[in-house]
This record gives sequence, structure tokens and C-alpha cells, in this order.
Amino acid sequence: MILILKTGIGTQSREYKQLLDFLSNKNNITTRTHSEIGTQQTVTEVYLVGDTASLAIGEMEGLPGVERVVRISQDYRVLGRHHADNRANGFTYNGVRFDQDSLNIFAGLCAVDNPRHVEMMLKALQERGQVCTRMGAYKPRTSPYSFQGHGKTCLPYVFELAGKYGIKVVAMEVTHDEHVTEIRNALEEAGNPTGVMLQIGTRNTQNFELLKAVGRQSELPVLLKRGFGITLEESLNAAEYMASEGNFKVIFGLRGIKTNMGDPHRNLVDFSHVPVVRRLTRMPVCIDPSHSVGSRDRDPDGILDVFHVTAQGIIAGANMVLVDFHPNPSAALVDGPQALRMDELDYFLEDIAIARKAYEERKVLRQKQDS
Amino acid sequence: MILILKTGIGTQSREYKQLLDFLSNKNNITTRTHSEIGTQQTVTEVYLVGDTASLAIGEMEGLPGVERVVRISQDYRVLGRHHADNRANGFTYNGVRFDQDSLNIFAGLCAVDNPRHVEMMLKALQERGQVCTRMGAYKPRTSPYSFQGHGKTCLPYVFELAGKYGIKVVAMEVTHDEHVTEIRNALEEAGNPTGVMLQIGTRNTQNFELLKAVGRQSELPVLLKRGFGITLEESLNAAEYMASEGNFKVIFGLRGIKTNMGDPHRNLVDFSHVPVVRRLTRMPVCIDPSHSVGSRDRDPDGILDVFHVTAQGIIAGANMVLVDFHPNPSAALVDGPQALRMDELDYFLEDIAIARKAYEERKVLRQKQDS
Amino acid sequence: MILILKTGIGTQSREYKQLLDFLSNKNNITTRTHSEIGTQQTVTEVYLVGDTASLAIGEMEGLPGVERVVRISQDYRVLGRHHADNRANGFTYNGVRFDQDSLNIFAGLCAVDNPRHVEMMLKALQERGQVCTRMGAYKPRTSPYSFQGHGKTCLPYVFELAGKYGIKVVAMEVTHDEHVTEIRNALEEAGNPTGVMLQIGTRNTQNFELLKAVGRQSELPVLLKRGFGITLEESLNAAEYMASEGNFKVIFGLRGIKTNMGDPHRNLVDFSHVPVVRRLTRMPVCIDPSHSVGSRDRDPDGILDVFHVTAQGIIAGANMVLVDFHPNPSAALVDGPQALRMDELDYFLEDIAIARKAYEERKVLRQKQDS
Amino acid sequence: MILILKTGIGTQSREYKQLLDFLSNKNNITTRTHSEIGTQQTVTEVYLVGDTASLAIGEMEGLPGVERVVRISQDYRVLGRHHADNRANGFTYNGVRFDQDSLNIFAGLCAVDNPRHVEMMLKALQERGQVCTRMGAYKPRTSPYSFQGHGKTCLPYVFELAGKYGIKVVAMEVTHDEHVTEIRNALEEAGNPTGVMLQIGTRNTQNFELLKAVGRQSELPVLLKRGFGITLEESLNAAEYMASEGNFKVIFGLRGIKTNMGDPHRNLVDFSHVPVVRRLTRMPVCIDPSHSVGSRDRDPDGILDVFHVTAQGIIAGANMVLVDFHPNPSAALVDGPQALRMDELDYFLEDIAIARKAYEERKVLRQKQDS
Repeated sequence: MILILKTGIGTQSREYKQLLDFLSNKNNITTRTHSEIGTQQTVTEVYLVGDTASLAIGEMEGLPGVERVVRISQDYRVLGRHHADNRANGFTYNGVRFDQDSLNIFAGLCAVDNPRHVEMMLKALQERGQVCTRMGAYKPRTSPYSFQGHGKTCLPYVFELAGKYGIKVVAMEVTHDEHVTEIRNALEEAGNPTGVMLQIGTRNTQNFELLKAVGRQSELPVLLKRGFGITLEESLNAAEYMASEGNFKVIFGLRGIKTNMGDPHRNLVDFSHVPVVRRLTRMPVCIDPSHSVGSRDRDPDGILDVFHVTAQGIIAGANMVLVDFHPNPSAALVDGPQALRMDELDYFLEDIAIARKAYEERKVLRQKQDS
Repeated sequence: MILILKTGIGTQSREYKQLLDFLSNKNNITTRTHSEIGTQQTVTEVYLVGDTASLAIGEMEGLPGVERVVRISQDYRVLGRHHADNRANGFTYNGVRFDQDSLNIFAGLCAVDNPRHVEMMLKALQERGQVCTRMGAYKPRTSPYSFQGHGKTCLPYVFELAGKYGIKVVAMEVTHDEHVTEIRNALEEAGNPTGVMLQIGTRNTQNFELLKAVGRQSELPVLLKRGFGITLEESLNAAEYMASEGNFKVIFGLRGIKTNMGDPHRNLVDFSHVPVVRRLTRMPVCIDPSHSVGSRDRDPDGILDVFHVTAQGIIAGANMVLVDFHPNPSAALVDGPQALRMDELDYFLEDIAIARKAYEERKVLRQKQDS
Repeated sequence: MILILKTGIGTQSREYKQLLDFLSNKNNITTRTHSEIGTQQTVTEVYLVGDTASLAIGEMEGLPGVERVVRISQDYRVLGRHHADNRANGFTYNGVRFDQDSLNIFAGLCAVDNPRHVEMMLKALQERGQVCTRMGAYKPRTSPYSFQGHGKTCLPYVFELAGKYGIKVVAMEVTHDEHVTEIRNALEEAGNPTGVMLQIGTRNTQNFELLKAVGRQSELPVLLKRGFGITLEESLNAAEYMASEGNFKVIFGLRGIKTNMGDPHRNLVDFSHVPVVRRLTRMPVCIDPSHSVGSRDRDPDGILDVFHVTAQGIIAGANMVLVDFHPNPSAALVDGPQALRMDELDYFLEDIAIARKAYEERKVLRQKQDS
Repeated sequence: MILILKTGIGTQSREYKQLLDFLSNKNNITTRTHSEIGTQQTVTEVYLVGDTASLAIGEMEGLPGVERVVRISQDYRVLGRHHADNRANGFTYNGVRFDQDSLNIFAGLCAVDNPRHVEMMLKALQERGQVCTRMGAYKPRTSPYSFQGHGKTCLPYVFELAGKYGIKVVAMEVTHDEHVTEIRNALEEAGNPTGVMLQIGTRNTQNFELLKAVGRQSELPVLLKRGFGITLEESLNAAEYMASEGNFKVIFGLRGIKTNMGDPHRNLVDFSHVPVVRRLTRMPVCIDPSHSVGSRDRDPDGILDVFHVTAQGIIAGANMVLVDFHPNPSAALVDGPQALRMDELDYFLEDIAIARKAYEERKVLRQKQDS
């Protein structure tokens, strides 16, 4: 059960203290408070855990400072959408808005290889007005004998160049909690020229210790990819690990299901789950067309499958796109074959714009049905 | 290897006979001739099977009556797209065009229950200018104790009503070769007021005897659904069973993959394979959003998942939509929960129109890249 | 609900007629009677279908001629094991016993190629005291351009040779109802020198028309293989299609799950379901190690994986083994690579004997726990 | 390529230095040396990585100190079985032998709950002559709101009691590298009364940072479970992460495949892969019947499915069994429903003995075929 407090009722207020006192007398109920500090106002929510079935919503609504009460189901307590749950969703990070209505494109390098390629990529993005990118520094690889990414050694030039080209958010995979420390240190040493969205890959979706580590800090947002071989419900529960530690800035990423039923694509694309994640949770939904498809195959009209599945995600409401580009795909150290080329960037963005416009028209059409 | 003959060179011509004579002297090569009789012209193709690797394309191109030679790979000989293969695709049936550029909507009843519901459905379609529908008479059910469809007893009124309301093509599942006979007899007895597209469901994708039976007649086109638990390649090979018997009027249907990875949808929607089927074969591609999703769940804006996945199929080039409607879903004998309501028909068609327009804009954008 | 009648109460008796009269007055209840005619006695069972929840077991037990009443769950009405259901299981066919305690080996040719190979196989079996075999005449193949089996043309010599070498039961796949007719005719023309167990392959597990056709005759028993991509429950329901038509002589076959999770085996072996099928139903359980494994790979001690998985099935209670042998595997027309060689037959049977003995010791050990 | 040095040629020898000098002049070749220090002798192996295709085996065999050369395939360099690779397998830890011929039973608590239950379990094991157990302290759970294990707080009493009851090896899951430190510290503080086998669960099979951490220490052996939703090959590659860091004491654990094809079992049991892992690698193979089956269901004779699948693993050569017992299953904090009861321990061990004897008879039978 969540008690959403009235605007202005913070954790220093008299009402808050009265409320906590009252709740401390309830048996088998523990509380956890989360404050979302915005530029305009601060929203404080008190989460009640334990035997909440014994609490009456009416009584809770009458408590000091309480604006509204949401009774939550077992799953996804913090990040889920519950019955009659009209809490806002999303967050703003480094000036960029992420929620279930926004759309942000993260085109970039799957694996950072050298400063020249990083700069070519970022410059091209700035020229098209883009403020987000992906840059892989830590790469988990199936074989220990494959290239594992440049790691922290590339962070200084990646962040400096990101700042130089006006990039606000760099999505970057981490596979150990010390990577988070390395990234935060490198950002600070560089004078915070940009921001970072931590990315948890599909191999670590249920690496709960890592989830708790990125959840214990709430500065950097996190993109959690759906896990291999587990249900959607289990992946959404994994997102909750971060929220339960205090970081609510979580985006959920669809990246295809690993099964030979998806052949000839590398994975079976699962973007039909975009509306499902938006319905079950309040997380923005990201799609990863590059790793889902894994090739540069085209339809008979010459349109790449990567473009098609991107359009499919967008027309159903996806909020973020993570996509591999490379100045020289054949020389890329990781996943080159699927990367888009720099001269396809304009075309890719225009193709997305068509699908996004269609999505918006579909939303308007839906609203008309009610009137 | 396929020898495509010059226009006007039919199986009665002198050139054709010379050609066959010549080929009969080749060791380990057998031939099979297929004539596509159109309103404007007849195209005759000679399929060479066996040790075709020993034949030189140059020599074959010099044979009497031969216009063009296509060397085909092992798979999908007839229905596949081969290297440098610019043969036309698709067919016209009862005045309706089916190919990889067209779009036809088959809204209708998953299972015919009574004449009143059939008539309500067909009348609504006519009012919206629709000329296709789906009407299930033979229903394969997991349990022998479930309703199995009205079978041939409902055919007379279904066909008569289809004719009355200007329906040109009724998609109808068959599960035994005698159903084909029953359907053809019923059509004839009714004076052919409409046409029928035979539908092979996912449980029978590898029921090769049934495929051969529907392949041996070439009057009625066939919609073959992708099979449960087999690869896409295996399902496409199944389509080839019909073509190898002489029926080239085959449409391939995507209907989702049966796996708990698709939860909470009934199946994991596989419409990302629309461009794949268009690339690998020359078959038009159908999507079945109703059985893929299997529910009436909605996103937070109120848009049904069934609508979202339909839009996903369309924006990537789907050529046919098979969708369940019902005048009274809660009373439907089969799959009621997922059916759309009659008052959603206009909205559904408008939503499709938005996605189709986006697809066409994407094709134009693609063409611009080459110029 | 099943009413099991007293011994000697047949469908001509007065009690039976009284019983049916009484039941005909019950609303929404229909009946179906099945008589199992044995050498010693005939057991008659009356199946009640419909609103059986309204019937009291006590009242039913008091009806004329009724020995015992079994209330059945929705699934697997006839073939299932229900609460307090101690009906016998299994059947005798052509002198061979098939039930959940017996073990029969069906070694033979995946695909009949010529009389010489058939004779070599059958002679070898007779020399080892075997009375069952497998002989494939009708072969469903993924591609229409692959060898499809010799079909009915090979039946005369297969049956004649079977009789010559004392084979009592030949397992043989059918893919169309007319194959059943062909087999029955060929048996009759040959003077019934042997018996046939019809086999329904994994591609036809949900070809319900075929299941109903083999169910409408009750002379020949049927081996139903588990289906591709469907749940165990759905495959067991498919078996019920035969029983609902009157053929209770059904054996259920495990043959592995088609998924790349089984690599490097062709399928993921599912013989852990042997005890599950024995628990949920009263069908004997067959295992097919050849198609599950699909190779002749060995462990470091030289034991073939095919032998290992066979032992795994046997030690858990499997009742039948379907296994591919071939006098010359490299020349086999279908599935040669996985076939065992004739000189491995003795070793194979001895290896099975070890596993079977272990199973029997395990049963004795279990019984000791209760005493 | 692996150069296996002659007995007595250690890293301090002149030959070793000459060898390394020589190799350092080869382009694109790097070396890594591993010494296995035994009680009798020390085996030193030099791994060559890079462009080894350019090296001739003959030349390498002639180098100073080299006994034998093994050319390895790309995969599983250290742990794999390569062509003509007769290196020994396995290791001895704390006096217990683990290799592809041994069999060790690890019965114990899935999750440690209190000292009393730990003691009851260990005492029962000692009474039956068992020297291994499983004791879960760190439990990864799908939901962050479920019990997560007692963690390091329970280690002191677990280790002390293990020592008291003569337990030599305790298998214990870790989910973060600091758990390894905690365990090693606790062992040391307790005076090393027992040993620990670190266990990596299925959710962390591709948590490469954790694998590298447990690989950097080579004192404690590691049991790596197969991963969810990835191929066997990918899981075996993950094992190689530990070996590539220097820890060769790795056991590979089969625990079932997560798919609804396994219903009604929790997972689809994959013990048919026991011979596959033995063939592809030199790792001992563990089976986990408890988590594979996930229930206490029985066959009609009363034998638990958990017992059946254990016997299946053993008869095919499994080397280790990890199995959940609990003094009071209904009160267990984690996975109670599948746990075996203390009064079933004797029966379980006897049932295993039957299957193991059958396996040994099968090995003897195989050897006879060659003579």
C-alpha cells in the first residue's frame, strides 16, 4: 500500500511525523519513504510493507498529510501500475525527459574502439540535434577469449567528447558494481560534461547484487534489459530490485527473446510487449532493434529489417531506441554486422519520424472514440 | 532451375515440345510444367528437378522458347525468391488481388454460430466497403469434448449470405481433404455466390497429406498458418508442399509463437517476420492479431494490444489481416474473449489506415535513398 | 463420470437397459458405452458426459448393474487416471501385452527401403526372441522434394516377412486415414500373418481428423507421439480424441522436445516425463531414443548417447522402446546417421536388461518402505 | 594449443625458461602457464593463445621440456576435451575426489534457517557416512520482497557444525564476489573445520565478473549451474571464464531447462546432457533433481519423480547430486514443497546405489564389446 502525501508535506513536517508514529503502532507493518524532488514540487510517498491487507483504505486516507492511497498488488510494488493508480510516471535526467509519452533515440557505438570513431559518431548526432547516445565500454562476451571492451580507460575521452558535442545522456552497460564507481569518478573528474544512463544487460537481469548496487545510488538512471529465458514477469520483478533500494529512475528494455523460433533473426523480436510493459508498470519502454535482429538483411523493397522492427516498436508506443551505428561496421570490434552506417543516420531518423507520427495519430483516433 | 518461357509459348506450341524433347535426354533431370493463365497473357514455367547443377545457365537460355532462367536454391523451389529472381508474385482470385503489395482485411467470425450473427457481420462489412471475411465452420479443438464447429451444415447459409452482401472471398479453415470437397460442392450448389480461401491452421502446418490435397486443386487459394514449435524455414517448406502439387495461390500466415515467453499474450507475436517472409518467398503475408494476442487488454491510453500488433504488422508490410469480430463476444462459442465488437469495426479500419499510410510513406522514403 | 458395471452385465442385459432408461431422463446428460471384451470376462463401462456435477455418486452407485463409480476431471476422461481410480490399464494385442508394467522393444527400420534389409532385420530379431519391430512405410518429410517412403507398395512383403519371422506387432506410421485402410487391406490379403500398431507422428499429434479416423477402428492399437511445440497436457488431450471415438488401445510416445536448448542432440530428451504420463493417464509409455538424440555420439567411455537415454527411460519405468536399426546405416534413405548397426543389437538388448533390472529393484525397494 | 611439460619441469627450470624465450619470438602468440601441484607430482601446462594455426605440432613437440602437445579447438580451451586429448580430469579437495568417474551426494538444506535444522541434517549425514552437504546462505530470489537468505551471519555455526559432524565439503551459492571473501574469512576464523564448494546459480551463469572473481582464487572449487535460456555451449563457455583466470576445479551442474514444455515439472529435466558434458569437457557433472522437478509428485507405484530423475542422471554417469532435504519441509523458508524428508534419506541413498550399480555394469558391458 502506498500513501501519497499532499504537496508540501515533506519528511520534516509535523504531519509526516504524526503519520509515522501512527503507523509504527500497527503490527507487522513496516514503512519506507521515498521523496521525488522536482523543480516545481516535491512528492513524498510512504510505502507500507507487510500485512497491509488488514488496513482499511478509508482509515488510511484519513491520516494526517495523506492525499491519496493506492493499494498495490504483490508484484512490482514500486514500479507497477496498480488499481486506480494514476501516479505520474517517468523522470527528468540532465535535462532530458524520460516517461511513457516521450521518445529518445540512443544511436551510438556498441563497443567503443577509439576516440576517432567516438568523435565521428557524436559529431554526427549533434548535427542532427540528438542529445543521447550509446557507448559500450564494458562488454560481457560469451567467451573469455573475446575482446571484453576498453573498460574505464576509455571513459575520459568518451565523456569529454560527449560534452564537446552537447550529448546529455550516454547509455553504458555495467557488469559489476565497481563499474558504477568508475563511471561516477570519471564523470566527476571530467567535470560532469555529460550524464550516464547505466545499462544492465540481458545476462545480468537477475544478477540481483548488481541491481541492488545500482539501486542504492539514485543519481544515475538505469536501463534494465529483459532477461534471457525468463518470463516477462520475472524481468519486471528484477526492475523492482532497483526500486526497492531507492532508485526509481528505471527504464525497461526489450531486446528480443533468445530462441531458434526467431531465425533468421538473432532473436525473436518481442516489441509486441511495448504496450504490455506500459500497462503493467510505469516504466518507460526501450527497444533494441540492433540486437534483436542481428543482421543487415532487407525486404524486397530494400528496407532493412532493423528499420522495420524499429517502426513496429515506435508505432506501438516505445519511448526509447537503443541502436548500433558505426563509422566502419566491418572494422567494429563487437557486433559489426548488424550496425547501421553513418550515412544511414538521416534516413533512420526520418523513418522513425514517420512511425512516431502514425503513433500520435493513433492516440488521437483512440481519444475520439470516447467522445 | 526454372525456365520461364516467352509470352505466348504454351504447352501446345512447337517450341515447348522441342524443349521437352531436349530435356528428356538429360540424365537425372525431370521436368514439371506450370502455366499461370491470366486475363492478359499466359506465363508458362518449366521446373527442372534433379541434378540441375550440371546444367549451364547459358545453354538453357539458348533453348527454344526460353525467355529467362532462374537457378533456385534447395528450399522453397516454387514459392521462394531466388538469386536474380524478379518473377511476379501473387494472384487474383474472384476479382480480389493478393500479392506482396496489396492489403486485404478479413474480419469475421472465428466460429460460425448462427445465421443471424453471420448476417450482422457481413452486412457491417458491406457497409464499410469490405469484400473479404473469415467464417470458421470446421474448428480443431484441443479437447475432443469441446464444440468442434458446425461443419458443412452451415455452409449453405454462409455462402448465400456472403453473396447477398457482396463478399468475394471467405477464409475458412479445413482440417481434412473431404472438407475441401464439401466446400466446393456447397459453393457449386449455391451457384458460386462467393469465393473461398482455404485455411490450414497451425496444428496442421505439417499435415502433409492435407497440404497435398489442397495443392492438387488450384481453384481455391490457400492460407497456410505458421506451425507450432517448428522453425520458420520448416513452415515455409510446408507451403512448398502445395506448390509442388500445382497450387501456387498460397498466402503465408503469421499467428504468433506458442511459448510462455509471450505471456501475458497468448502467444509471442512474430510479426517481425513479415519482411523475412517477403524476402525469402514470393508469398503474400497474412497476420492474425486475434490469436496472437488472445485478450482484450489495453495500454494505459486505452488502445487494445490487438490494435497495436495489427499496426505493427501493417507498418512492416503485411498484406492480409485475419481478425476475429463478433456481434456478441461474450456469447461466442469459440475464442470470444479476444474478439472485437461490431462497434469497433470503423475504428479498427481507421487505425489500420493510419499504419498503412505510414508504411507507404516509408517505402517512398526508401526509394528516395537510391536517387 | 464413469459407471463401471458388474462382471457379466453386458449391453444385452436387463440391468443395462434399466440403467440407460433411468439415465435418459436426466437433463443434459448423454451416455456412451464401451465394452472391453477379454478372454476371461467382459467389462462394460458407461461414460456420462454433460452436467455430471449434478449427479450424486451415492445415487449412481445404487443403480442397477453398477459396480463402481469414478468421477473424472475435465481432462483425459477416458485415458486419464482419476481420483480413486483403480481401473486396470493396458491391453493385449495379437498375443503381446502392453500396459504400464510391461516392456516391449520395437527395433527396426525407420524407413523400409528394400525386402533384403527388412528380412535381415526381422531375422535378427527372431534370433533374439523379439516379437515386435518398427517398419516405416509412409514417411512425412519436411520438404516435398525428399523421399516420402514406399507407402503401400512395400506392405505385402513387410507383412509376409514379419509372419515368416514370428513378428507379432509391426509399428508403422500413418499420415492419412486411407493409410489405415491400405494397411488393413494388406494385412487381410496376406492372411494376417502379423499385427500392426498404427503410429501417429509428432507432426500429426493435433491432426484431429486423423486421430478420429484411427479411433473409429478399435482393432489396431495406436502409438501417439507427443507433439512439437505444444504442452504435455495438450498432447495427452490429443490421445483422448482416439479414446472418445472408441479405441482405448493407445500408447503414448515421448520423442524429445524440439528446441535448440537440446543441442547438440537433435531434440531435448524428455524421458523425465515417463513417470508423469504414468501418473496422469493409464497409457503405457513409449520412448524413442533414436529421434530424440539424432546422432551416434558417445561419452568418453564409448557408450552411445542413444544407449544412455534409453537406459534413462527404462530405469524410470518406460514400457516400450522404438529404436532405429539398419543393416547399412550409411545407405539408409531416412535418418541413417542415428541408426544402430545390426552388430549392436545384442549389446543394446543387454544394456536395456541392466536398466530394466535396476528399475525392478527400485520398485521392490519402494514397496519395502511401506512395510 | 597446450604444451604439456615433462614431469619435474617446473617454472623455475632451465628448460621452461628456454621454452618461454623461444615462444616470445613468435608473432601474435601469447602464453599462459598453469601448474597443477599434486601430492605426487606437479604438472605444468603452457597455453598458447593467438595465431596458433601457424605453429606446427611437430616443431612444438621438439621444444625443450615438452612432453606432449594438444591442439585445441576454439571453445573451452582449458576445460574442454580436444582431439587426442587424454589429459586427466578432476581434482581432490579437502580429501574428497571429484572427477568424471566419482560420485558424491550433496544432500542438505536449500536455505539455512536455524542451527537446529542444520545440526539435524548434518548429524543424519554423518550417520550414513556422508561427507558432503549443501547449505544455502545467500539466496537469489525473483522478488526483492522475498526472504534472501541469512547470508554471512549463519556461516559461523554452519561451518562449526560441519566440522563437528565430519563434513568435508559444503556446497554454498554465492552471488557476489564479497560473498567469497566472507566465506573464506569465516572458514579461517572457525579454524577451517570443513571446506566449501562455491556454487554459481543459473541466474548468474553469465555474470562474468562473478565468474572471474571465483576464478581468481583457486583454493575453493566451483559448481557452475547451467544458465536459463542459453545454449549448453554458452554455459560451457561460461565455465571457461573461471578456468581462464586460473581455477580449474570446476564442476558443471545440470538443473533443468526453464520452459513450459517441462510442465508439470518446474523445469524440463536435462540429464540426457550428462554424457554430452562428459564428452565435450573434462568437468565432473552434477545433477540437481530437486530444482529440476520442483514437486513431490509420485508415479502410480509411489516412487517420487525426484527419485526417478536422480536415477536417470546416475545411470548415465552423473558424478554429483545436489538435493534438497529438510527436517520439516512445510516450514522451510525456500522451496519447501520439493524437499525430501529426513526419514527418506536412507531410501534415497539406497535408490541411488541401485542406479549407480547399473551404471557400473553398463560400463563393464561396454568394455566387453571391444574385446
